[in-house]
Amino acid sequence: MSDPSFNRSQLEQLISRRFFYAPAFSIYGGVAGLYDYGPTGCALMSNIIQLWRNHFVLEEEMLEVDTTIMTPAEVLKTSGHVEKFSDWMCKDVKNGEIFRADHLVEAVLEARLQGDKEAKAAASGAAHVETPTATDPATAKKASKKKKSKVVVVELKPEEKAAYEDILAKIDNFGGPELAEIITKWNIKSPESGNDLTAPQEFNLMFDSSIGPTGHLKGYLRPETAQGQFLNFKKLLEFNNDKMPFASASIGRSFRNEISPRSGLLRVREFTMAEIEHFVDPENKDHSRFDDVKDIKLNLLPAKVQLEGSTAITVMTIGDAVAQGVVDNKTLGYFLGRIYLFLIKVGINPDKLRFRQHMSNEMAHYACDCWDAEIKSSYGWIECVGCADRSAYDLTVHAKRTKEKLVVREQLDEPKVIDKLQLEVNKKVFGPKFKKNAKTVEDALLALSEDGLQKLKDELDASEKTSINVEGQDYELTKTDISIERVTVTEHIREYTPNVIEPSFGLGRILYSLLEHVWWKRDNDEDRNVLSFPAVVAPYKCCLLPLSGNSVFTPVVRNLSQQLRAKNISTRTDDSKASIGRRYARNDELGIPFSVTIDFQTVEDGTVTLRERDSTKQIREKIEVILQVLKELSEETITWDKVVATYPAFSAKEGDEE
Amino acid sequence: MSDPSFNRSQLEQLISRRFFYAPAFSIYGGVAGLYDYGPTGCALMSNIIQLWRNHFVLEEEMLEVDTTIMTPAEVLKTSGHVEKFSDWMCKDVKNGEIFRADHLVEAVLEARLQGDKEAKAAASGAAHVETPTATDPATAKKASKKKKSKVVVVELKPEEKAAYEDILAKIDNFGGPELAEIITKWNIKSPESGNDLTAPQEFNLMFDSSIGPTGHLKGYLRPETAQGQFLNFKKLLEFNNDKMPFASASIGRSFRNEISPRSGLLRVREFTMAEIEHFVDPENKDHSRFDDVKDIKLNLLPAKVQLEGSTAITVMTIGDAVAQGVVDNKTLGYFLGRIYLFLIKVGINPDKLRFRQHMSNEMAHYACDCWDAEIKSSYGWIECVGCADRSAYDLTVHAKRTKEKLVVREQLDEPKVIDKLQLEVNKKVFGPKFKKNAKTVEDALLALSEDGLQKLKDELDASEKTSINVEGQDYELTKTDISIERVTVTEHIREYTPNVIEPSFGLGRILYSLLEHVWWKRDNDEDRNVLSFPAVVAPYKCCLLPLSGNSVFTPVVRNLSQQLRAKNISTRTDDSKASIGRRYARNDELGIPFSVTIDFQTVEDGTVTLRERDSTKQIREKIEVILQVLKELSEETITWDKVVATYPAFSAKEGDEE
Repeated sequence: MSDPSFNRSQLEQLISRRFFYAPAFSIYGGVAGLYDYGPTGCALMSNIIQLWRNHFVLEEEMLEVDTTIMTPAEVLKTSGHVEKFSDWMCKDVKNGEIFRADHLVEAVLEARLQGDKEAKAAASGAAHVETPTATDPATAKKASKKKKSKVVVVELKPEEKAAYEDILAKIDNFGGPELAEIITKWNIKSPESGNDLTAPQEFNLMFDSSIGPTGHLKGYLRPETAQGQFLNFKKLLEFNNDKMPFASASIGRSFRNEISPRSGLLRVREFTMAEIEHFVDPENKDHSRFDDVKDIKLNLLPAKVQLEGSTAITVMTIGDAVAQGVVDNKTLGYFLGRIYLFLIKVGINPDKLRFRQHMSNEMAHYACDCWDAEIKSSYGWIECVGCADRSAYDLTVHAKRTKEKLVVREQLDEPKVIDKLQLEVNKKVFGPKFKKNAKTVEDALLALSEDGLQKLKDELDASEKTSINVEGQDYELTKTDISIERVTVTEHIREYTPNVIEPSFGLGRILYSLLEHVWWKRDNDEDRNVLSFPAVVAPYKCCLLPLSGNSVFTPVVRNLSQQLRAKNISTRTDDSKASIGRRYARNDELGIPFSVTIDFQTVEDGTVTLRERDSTKQIREKIEVILQVLKELSEETITWDKVVATYPAFSAKEGDEE
Repeated sequence: MSDPSFNRSQLEQLISRRFFYAPAFSIYGGVAGLYDYGPTGCALMSNIIQLWRNHFVLEEEMLEVDTTIMTPAEVLKTSGHVEKFSDWMCKDVKNGEIFRADHLVEAVLEARLQGDKEAKAAASGAAHVETPTATDPATAKKASKKKKSKVVVVELKPEEKAAYEDILAKIDNFGGPELAEIITKWNIKSPESGNDLTAPQEFNLMFDSSIGPTGHLKGYLRPETAQGQFLNFKKLLEFNNDKMPFASASIGRSFRNEISPRSGLLRVREFTMAEIEHFVDPENKDHSRFDDVKDIKLNLLPAKVQLEGSTAITVMTIGDAVAQGVVDNKTLGYFLGRIYLFLIKVGINPDKLRFRQHMSNEMAHYACDCWDAEIKSSYGWIECVGCADRSAYDLTVHAKRTKEKLVVREQLDEPKVIDKLQLEVNKKVFGPKFKKNAKTVEDALLALSEDGLQKLKDELDASEKTSINVEGQDYELTKTDISIERVTVTEHIREYTPNVIEPSFGLGRILYSLLEHVWWKRDNDEDRNVLSFPAVVAPYKCCLLPLSGNSVFTPVVRNLSQQLRAKNISTRTDDSKASIGRRYARNDELGIPFSVTIDFQTVEDGTVTLRERDSTKQIREKIEVILQVLKELSEETITWDKVVATYPAFSAKEGDEE
């Protein structure tokens, strides 16, 4: 599947040479998992963000918010992140090296299996055994997480081999205790030193800090932008004139204190994400614009298929996928389609894009269904967008914790007569009887479901008393304390907690995948790298090249560059002394789609040449014409094919493209 | 100076009602100094950022970078922030309340002076004494920092009054020990409780955290984006083909763990800033585009004037200011002009904008000159943009700490013959003699200036020996260890550390000031708020208003909104049941400059009305015409005056504007 000639280190050199991004703090020795974006990467990212905003926020009048990174601990306790947003780590007992436990087990066992393969091959006289690579579909999924472990050529017993394979297939299911058992049972050591390892300990992946001068208010750097959106739900619903469904959106920095970050931009400690929280009626997950996407064909990898041990892709339209229940509902289907369209606009190769459904054991603690848009790169299939159904999880837990109603109240078209159990608390006796616990007990009673109330009522009716357990303590209740009666009420309002469909974009991962997808070498020449970004995301749209340092060009360049800026066409002027050909090559590496060359003829007749990056074809027209063409090209309202069909081709001077 | 009818709490209600921003985590009780931007505020901020990027980055081909927020402690130790980025706080010894010491002293002494005034007025039988307000120029500068302290009407002795006034005038000069003395001497207590206070302690304003799982790598959240730019200096210079001068730029979140944040968006713990680092030859601070700004007139408040106790404004052109030495150099002058132009484009009232030079005692530890663009609001004159000359401070300290050369190497037009002292170390004896300290001693010798070398040479020549003190220890040196000779060398390269001019924008402060400047009430009616944002920064450019919920309007609205999106005109559809007039009023509060109303005539003849927010004037034209007009209006390529001059005015139905 992946191109065997793909040479990642060459791409990495280009990325560094043209300063797309680089390890942060490199002059201080660097810090793993932190990267700085240089001028090209920063412009690329900012264009991707602008495209995202146009594609999602503007297109659907989403309510974009910008909430704080610093988050008090209480919020993330409620959301479950303090307890569950963690990985297991273990330490080399002697040198203190730290490993993420599951990655370590994976790496060691895979190395042993590889050693076994090589040993068997050697025994049978085979010349060469391929190392498993990211192109192997069975291992591709997890390729990005692995740190290579030394391969020792030793044959395994059949039962060992089977056990290792079984562990690897289930690795995502294991918590600390299981990993501890595996490490002990299979004698896993610190790979480099051979030392023993400590038992896996849980390590929370949030960066913590302290807010204000007291030292008593603990805070975390947010691990996602979602919580800020949930906390503002009430204000947003009101802003939306109480209409449902609606979506909020947020673009911003989030943090994840990885145990041992690797794989470049794919696993970092600080990253820019873009998240949508689409609030929807749990009883009606249709989408008014579903028809816009229903005919889009997607590469799908449903959970069911994976459970059968296969990674075979099902290609089907979104319409069929929803109709057949492969994708649960129209809103989820709608967003899968919109995500697809966005990624294609960015420049992702559609053949290297699939949508994989999470298996139940790998879902985040808040999700009830999740499809990942995975993009294929030299690291394997990488999750770049998650599209999770978080159900009513977050709004429910925050409402419960803060006693703030986070619900939608909907006027019913027709009033509804319903029959239900109604609880009344006899305040007169309740207070004196339960004293300081009165409120707690009352709250617990009020929170009971219909079934819970029925059980209490049955007990009261049978034995005149019942009890409720609150926070581990039983409280006895009699008919004097409470009454539970069946009543008929007419409801005019339906009150419900919305469900949330959450498309969540890891923009750095998309950016890296894009770099791999658009990179190629002209004429297979190692020195002629091209990055074929679509114009709309290209870091610069246009490069201005005066033929030489001759001062007759200076006013022309200044004037032209001023006119380009007035049209918001981002421009890089390259007036270095290198030849035009060298400069074309340099700007191909920056992925600049169009170059304008100013030469002596320009000074005479006001014409310039316009060259397109991928085809290297040129036209030569008056500056006014070229400006208009450039504006349309950079906004992608015309294609280059259309341009060359309209204006006569211009032959470059010999040697220009060398 | 400020409008006495200005009612801040009304504006705050509007800000909250229309969700420009709101205290973060409010359902959790809130956290001081943290704010979330709602849909309107977020769009406004994002438009301000886009304008900034066009005005600065695109306009001058600046190298924008996006660096990490999480910063290892070592970097901020070097930059001086660990030691110096702090405020003094003191605590109520009994209830633990924490105060920023200088603000507390200010508030208490000002309250006493006010009490004195009132007591004297009462004694003389005057009816009323005005509380000093932000309109008083002498106190306006610091108005935003004060927490009001209770005024007790007690007459002061003349020497007390004089002492208080002296302290207040110098308050920015005092550190912890001086503040401690003042607190003791003048018997300053915790204002609410009357309890004693602890001596002021230094409190570092950076949020700290720990990077990675070891717990040994301390990190801080950056207090400014500047350091990330300095650390990338070498890569940026290379990216710029080694050409000087050039500027980098960065837009992003920074943090400041304020002791007691207040004044809404003006003093917060997390904020978005935009910073430019313009790297320039220290021997030539001219700017090639200085002439573009030289005729702009600015309101200047030089340090000299302030030292004389005055806040009188000098209005002068930038050209004159630089020529007369009021502003130090052309690059600084150029940026003051560009900052001015940016703020005016955003919509800041030029009459409420001044440039104040820092006095030497209030400068940040890295700055050698600084002008603040201060904007007048109901909080007084607030620093919204700083424009500091950081000289070579940052590059020098980082280079020294990391041993990485952060310099420009410039080919000299003509080689320069110079006469200088040259040091040579005799490696053979040096190593054995100084053992593990050899490298340290050698480095110290190599770092000596020409004068330092001369001193050593003189001593060696006189007494055959000399010594150097390194980290508190003396090392004796003889003529065997080193030689220092005067030599003549021809230099082809000039090597220098660039100076940095840094315009640094607090975008939240600008946004808040803008809200104050553009807010007014139509016909002085309390319920008819208008926010007159310039179209280019308005959160939404256009509001779509179908006359009613009648379904004939649905396809027209959908079609029109789709066409507006295609033109990237951000649109809010308001199809609520309120009358057109009510909806105009609501959208005036959101600051939407243009409204398009779809009515029954639209369905018949395809015309719509277009209303402008400030004038409430309307035109009625075919949809195609209105779309084109809207595009130009929202990009500010035509004015509304031009539009009404071109198309016939349309009279709104009676009652529409009520």
